[in-house]
Amino acid sequence: MAGIPRSVLITGANQGLGLELVRQMAEGPSPIRHLLACCRDPDGPRGQALQDLAKRHPEVITVMQLDVTDLCSIQRCSQQVGSLVGVGGLNLLINNAAILLTGTMQTTSPEDMLATFNTNVLGPMNIIKAFLPHLCAAAAASSGMAAMSCSKAAVINLASLMGSMNLAPQTYHIVPSSFSYRVSKAALNMLTVCAALEFQQSEILFAALHPGWVKTDMGGEGGDLEASESAGGLIRVMDSLTEEQNGAFLNYDSTPMPW
Amino acid sequence: MAGIPRSVLITGANQGLGLELVRQMAEGPSPIRHLLACCRDPDGPRGQALQDLAKRHPEVITVMQLDVTDLCSIQRCSQQVGSLVGVGGLNLLINNAAILLTGTMQTTSPEDMLATFNTNVLGPMNIIKAFLPHLCAAAAASSGMAAMSCSKAAVINLASLMGSMNLAPQTYHIVPSSFSYRVSKAALNMLTVCAALEFQQSEILFAALHPGWVKTDMGGEGGDLEASESAGGLIRVMDSLTEEQNGAFLNYDSTPMPW
Ligand SMILES: NC(=O)c1ccc[n+]([C@@H]2O[C@H](COP(=O)([O-])OP(=O)(O)OC[C@H]3O[C@@H](n4cnc5c(N)ncnc54)[C@H](OP(=O)(O)O)[C@@H]3O)[C@@H](O)[C@H]2O)c1
Ligand SMILES: NC(=O)c1ccc[n+]([C@@H]2O[C@H](COP(=O)([O-])OP(=O)(O)OC[C@H]3O[C@@H](n4cnc5c(N)ncnc54)[C@H](OP(=O)(O)O)[C@@H]3O)[C@@H](O)[C@H]2O)c1
Repeated sequence: MAGIPRSVLITGANQGLGLELVRQMAEGPSPIRHLLACCRDPDGPRGQALQDLAKRHPEVITVMQLDVTDLCSIQRCSQQVGSLVGVGGLNLLINNAAILLTGTMQTTSPEDMLATFNTNVLGPMNIIKAFLPHLCAAAAASSGMAAMSCSKAAVINLASLMGSMNLAPQTYHIVPSSFSYRVSKAALNMLTVCAALEFQQSEILFAALHPGWVKTDMGGEGGDLEASESAGGLIRVMDSLTEEQNGAFLNYDSTPMPW
Repeated sequence: MAGIPRSVLITGANQGLGLELVRQMAEGPSPIRHLLACCRDPDGPRGQALQDLAKRHPEVITVMQLDVTDLCSIQRCSQQVGSLVGVGGLNLLINNAAILLTGTMQTTSPEDMLATFNTNVLGPMNIIKAFLPHLCAAAAASSGMAAMSCSKAAVINLASLMGSMNLAPQTYHIVPSSFSYRVSKAALNMLTVCAALEFQQSEILFAALHPGWVKTDMGGEGGDLEASESAGGLIRVMDSLTEEQNGAFLNYDSTPMPW
């Protein structure tokens, strides 16, 4: 990552991978100007660990309220971010927040399908649209930099192996009860691909990253990786992305994933 | 296709590909017991062409009301179909109805995203679940037949080239304004893949078929194919499907499509 301090926003930053990404970025070697750590209830008990982390890095971390299913919350957060980052803009937006409701197709209700679509697909879309001016500002402010990168202007969507049609025959029998989640992550992959093409001219890079199977609330005890290992890998992948990976679907160790 | 008369249901059968599929199946060589031609407004002007066609084949075609976004309409239709098909069940369900609302990611509203998801993804899901007993009845009634086929028990989802992540770099610049549609068709592909795995033991075959670029209301004047040519190809593909293609994504000429 270049030596210029950048501004980064992460959704769902109060636990799991989101919290670990904030921790490693705040404590890592890359200079950060603003680390905007968003969660839906920063003042409740679920926000406590993030608040504690923010107190240890008050010059870098700003905790912000953001419910990814609430357009008003998204708009308000975008305005606050605009005031904070100014003309430097927002260099990196990480759409990390998501839900996994269990159920096969037969046992998944229309309501669960819609809740999952709202959080995992519409949420990232509304957030990208609301923060686009700040991403464009960042691209303009770093127009001297070569092509695309996460130091210039980029959106990372947390994708999943479960969203891969190609790998479904292998993964289905391990986790059959993730129908709505799988459908939403396939939809999010298409969102990433379309956004990469739509915003190519604005020099904003988009990528879908699979974090591995991680021991978090979502991944459960059986996960292959600790959150620290996954977040470390994700940060290395983000640091390495160039325009060649615009619209790509990559694993946390940077190997390409099949759609 | 085997010589045993089967029962087939098609959604969005009042125009475009749906109407043409009904016409060719009613007039084709494969014996049909019930051709259940569904549309949302059978008695309005948009249902006229289908009503005219049904009058020419009164012994085969039954026109039925079905709005794929309306759970009550789906349930009512499923009950009527149950009474009609009886223990023979429903052999083939074709999820053909869909909408394409224009817009890039930037110009697509959350409302358009939800309307598209409701029609193109939730609709097929709710329909599959509602008609599952009839599909299972058909599988049981033809348990003497070898493995899976569209003569036994199958669901065909009308998919699209626009739903292919792999092909997006080639297709995007031809039709950039189909963001919500692309996302919905990628989601529908995952639905097809998951359903294929979930209902494998019930011997119900699932496949996603791309009809080509067809001159219909949706495809527009510039389409490569007449509806008759596409429908003919789709029927040939359906007739040829075996358990080997369970969960596959195929073109109307039966070539595999990349996810
Ligand atoms: N863990 C894995 O094995 C794995 C594998 C593949 C992909 N992923 C992806 O990686 C990302 C992070 O997953 P994780 O394992 O860290 O999950 P997690 O521990 O369950 O954390 C999910 C985060 O999303 C937040 N969130 C959910 N709905 C929200 C909303 N409406 N507004 C704001 N925040 C919301 C949660 O906030 P609350 O605390 O308020 O609920 C939480 O902070 C997700 O996108 C997930 O799909 C994870
Ligand atoms: N044409 C192409 O080039 C092309 C390419 C790839 C895939 N496809 C797919 O092929 C299928 C058929 O497309 P088409 O070209 O025949 O489109 P079309 O001419 O626009 O017909 C769409 C049909 O869907 C029906 N429909 C829409 N919403 C409905 C609802 N809520 N309930 C019931 N019916 C509803 C329409 O009914 P109304 O008349 O009442 O609106 C109409 O009968 C679609 O799944 C489409 O995505 C088409």
